Amino acid sequence: MPATAPPYEDLLAHQRETALLASTASLLGWDQETMMPPGGLEHRSNQLSQLAGLVHGRATDARVGEWLTACEADTELMHDPTQPAAVNVREWRRDYDRATKLPAELVVEFSQTTSKAKAEWDTAKTHNDFPRFAPWLDKIVELSRQKAACYGWDPASGEPWDALAEGYETGMTAAAVTEVFTPLRERLVDLVGRLGEAPRQPSNRFNELKLPVADQEKLVRAVSAAVGFDYQRGRLDVSSHPFCSDTHCHDVRLTTRFAEDNFNDALGSTMHETGHGLYEQGLPPEFIGTPRGESVGLSIHESQSRLWENQVGRSRAFWSWCFPKLNETFGDAVSGLTEEEVYAACNRVRPSLIRVEADEATYNLHIMIRFELERALLKNELDVGDLPTAWNQKYREYLGIDVPDDARGCLQDIHWSMGALGYFPTYTLGNLYGAQFFETATEALGGREEIQAMFARGEFAPLLDWLRTHIHEPGRTFTSADLCERITGRPLSADPLLRHLESKLPPIYGLA
Amino acid sequence: MPATAPPYEDLLAHQRETALLASTASLLGWDQETMMPPGGLEHRSNQLSQLAGLVHGRATDARVGEWLTACEADTELMHDPTQPAAVNVREWRRDYDRATKLPAELVVEFSQTTSKAKAEWDTAKTHNDFPRFAPWLDKIVELSRQKAACYGWDPASGEPWDALAEGYETGMTAAAVTEVFTPLRERLVDLVGRLGEAPRQPSNRFNELKLPVADQEKLVRAVSAAVGFDYQRGRLDVSSHPFCSDTHCHDVRLTTRFAEDNFNDALGSTMHETGHGLYEQGLPPEFIGTPRGESVGLSIHESQSRLWENQVGRSRAFWSWCFPKLNETFGDAVSGLTEEEVYAACNRVRPSLIRVEADEATYNLHIMIRFELERALLKNELDVGDLPTAWNQKYREYLGIDVPDDARGCLQDIHWSMGALGYFPTYTLGNLYGAQFFETATEALGGREEIQAMFARGEFAPLLDWLRTHIHEPGRTFTSADLCERITGRPLSADPLLRHLESKLPPIYGLA
Repeated sequence: MPATAPPYEDLLAHQRETALLASTASLLGWDQETMMPPGGLEHRSNQLSQLAGLVHGRATDARVGEWLTACEADTELMHDPTQPAAVNVREWRRDYDRATKLPAELVVEFSQTTSKAKAEWDTAKTHNDFPRFAPWLDKIVELSRQKAACYGWDPASGEPWDALAEGYETGMTAAAVTEVFTPLRERLVDLVGRLGEAPRQPSNRFNELKLPVADQEKLVRAVSAAVGFDYQRGRLDVSSHPFCSDTHCHDVRLTTRFAEDNFNDALGSTMHETGHGLYEQGLPPEFIGTPRGESVGLSIHESQSRLWENQVGRSRAFWSWCFPKLNETFGDAVSGLTEEEVYAACNRVRPSLIRVEADEATYNLHIMIRFELERALLKNELDVGDLPTAWNQKYREYLGIDVPDDARGCLQDIHWSMGALGYFPTYTLGNLYGAQFFETATEALGGREEIQAMFARGEFAPLLDWLRTHIHEPGRTFTSADLCERITGRPLSADPLLRHLESKLPPIYGLA
Repeated sequence: MPATAPPYEDLLAHQRETALLASTASLLGWDQETMMPPGGLEHRSNQLSQLAGLVHGRATDARVGEWLTACEADTELMHDPTQPAAVNVREWRRDYDRATKLPAELVVEFSQTTSKAKAEWDTAKTHNDFPRFAPWLDKIVELSRQKAACYGWDPASGEPWDALAEGYETGMTAAAVTEVFTPLRERLVDLVGRLGEAPRQPSNRFNELKLPVADQEKLVRAVSAAVGFDYQRGRLDVSSHPFCSDTHCHDVRLTTRFAEDNFNDALGSTMHETGHGLYEQGLPPEFIGTPRGESVGLSIHESQSRLWENQVGRSRAFWSWCFPKLNETFGDAVSGLTEEEVYAACNRVRPSLIRVEADEATYNLHIMIRFELERALLKNELDVGDLPTAWNQKYREYLGIDVPDDARGCLQDIHWSMGALGYFPTYTLGNLYGAQFFETATEALGGREEIQAMFARGEFAPLLDWLRTHIHEPGRTFTSADLCERITGRPLSADPLLRHLESKLPPIYGLA
């Protein structure tokens, strides 16, 4: 590591303090979703606003810009772009420029608009009343265009969507997303169609069994610990929408949810959040509070959650290991079920209306619809008033289903009401990265049969070690695209995910 | 309310922001004791240090002094000392002067010393090794004397202890404490002696019954809700040392503890913390973040916890109401117990070694011993090296028991290792205030028979309403001593607590 000079040391100290303050806000956010009594809401919102203000003030402090300029001129410091100090300067520069590009009035107007829009969206969804939400979405799209204009995009090949998406995923552009999404969509639509017409349809019995919540909790805790989640440095609680809180690598908090008749959802949610949690716990503690010690971004984070949820948790070998535990935990309540039946039930594919309830295959079609629509809204190729019609057409076209109302249609997600345009594709990019990483890991660990045999024996440590070394430990040293090329030797492609789904699903459905 | 001018408005805004930040630290403290995984400790300590620094910086900001001076010169604002603005200015001045009186080096040295001393105390207690802790206590006493010299005390009648105690209880002096403690000690020693020799000794059977923790929790939750704790604005969790977190009146978090064979402790701890929680929930929300909306201090807080724990929760009428619930909850496990036996078991008096396990009567003798010893240490009338001998002599004299080792003797409490000299008496002052308030409330609500009949019917709202009006709603409008005189018409005295104990305990022991 090159010697660091005072400007870097000053910058480091300043940014670490800022990150420390942000980690406090993160804990308050976790508490709000899991522990806070209803009466605490107003005060909590004041606490979070105060911390956001303090963090923003520190992040946009003019001294940060000066320190960054001094560091960037230090050729020794910046010589090797993979060294921690160079990584930090690069990422801090990106954050600083982005944070200082918006005029304060636009930040305030955006925040006030989305704060009200969230409440309006909530009411509109409850009453299936799209016209109520439409003017708010219209305003959000307009303000988002203004934000995009401030951030800027590649004038040759870019578009407004790119400028917003950059905030969620460095280097993500609509053109690049389209390039992987198009073949994925075509082949997924075909696959889902074949499965729908297959002679053997998996039974849904397991997914609807009534199982005591206390026992469900016992089992999902045991499973998350068995795959490697460290409960000395984390915890698992319940919230209505499962999430993983990222305070720091020694205090990682997952949530899941339970329903008496949906253990599959509890297990899938827990495996998903455990995947996020394993990533957070694997970040290098010596770099806490700096980009070098943080996750790459949303897509890579999602790659880890989807990898553990789908590549591991919905594999045949996982169920060889887990099925006896199911019997031990639930006893008579699961008698009569076979291992094969449970495995098939967890891999049921069925076009449905709601994204968050979708299966591993159709989920990505839900994402593409949102991506195409938000892109069109930003480009002025679609009016907000026409959104429901466009939404419903695409559901018909990609998923083959009719949307009965907007509550279960274009009003179902909170994202746009929060102003998060450009966010959705990170979910599917996560699926793609996850599948591509898993293919490489499988090869590295001796091939498909070998890794499946490990899972069947409950050995998840070799996979976790591989992920630790190649993905977790480097923190934000590389961008998503660079990391993918370095690890897998290829740019991101739809092929690994399609290979995975094509090899797993048809046999379950009795197809060749 | 008088019109307020810009200096007051500026001060108010500044102080409210400071209080908001402090409430975030309070939540982090709660989380550390109840939720945080072990791995989170170091980072949490960094978060809390950061917040403490921010809060201290704001609290000692020179502008606060300037605003205060301007406000104090505003005769209209300060005309009626019971008006919110005047109360706030008075209390902020007290806080500001105290916060700015210590030189920064002393603050740092004290903080570093006590941080290490706490760890040394912990080890010394575990290994029953007083000599290990002695040099640290010596240093703490010396630094405390320096702090006292900075704060100052009444040169005519005061002493160093007063200057430290002022930080826990406005106006508390060693001389005033001695005046109420002396008769209390003499009569308590006599009472405890008579009970020890009484012909009838309450059975301990109830206190040692094995009862499922899940059922214990169900019952203590029901009881705390029944006496008035609002779970929409609070919660109850488990921690090794029960406490009540004071984030703000709409988010009040209690903790308790459970052992399979000590339901009495779980119930007593819950009632105690519920008393604290009812006070916090009763503070006026319109004054959140200002002294007018805060509790008076430690003694009055403790008066509320002790009132609900002892005056209510250990009364005969409480058990008339609660005993059927005990049977409903635990079923066969409590069969054969009588209401009378449970009531007597909860009121067992027995000299013991450990303060936190002591009963309602002997508890105060534990406190007096600590008060007398810390006072002597600060006055240089006792050397730290002689503390164990002096401690053991007093336990022999006041409680009639021999202390077998320092771990169960002068090393049992954490307080001195934290530098909290002058704190202990607030516990007994709380008992005294609680008894005196309860006597007045009893009269106001129709007398002893009437209030006991209410409790037996499970009606606790009239008592809570009385406390709300007279104690909770005024916030910090009055000092403890003033509040006591206003409400009860008399200065604090040992008589009400002694009357309460003399009327309750001897009959349980078969004495006239």
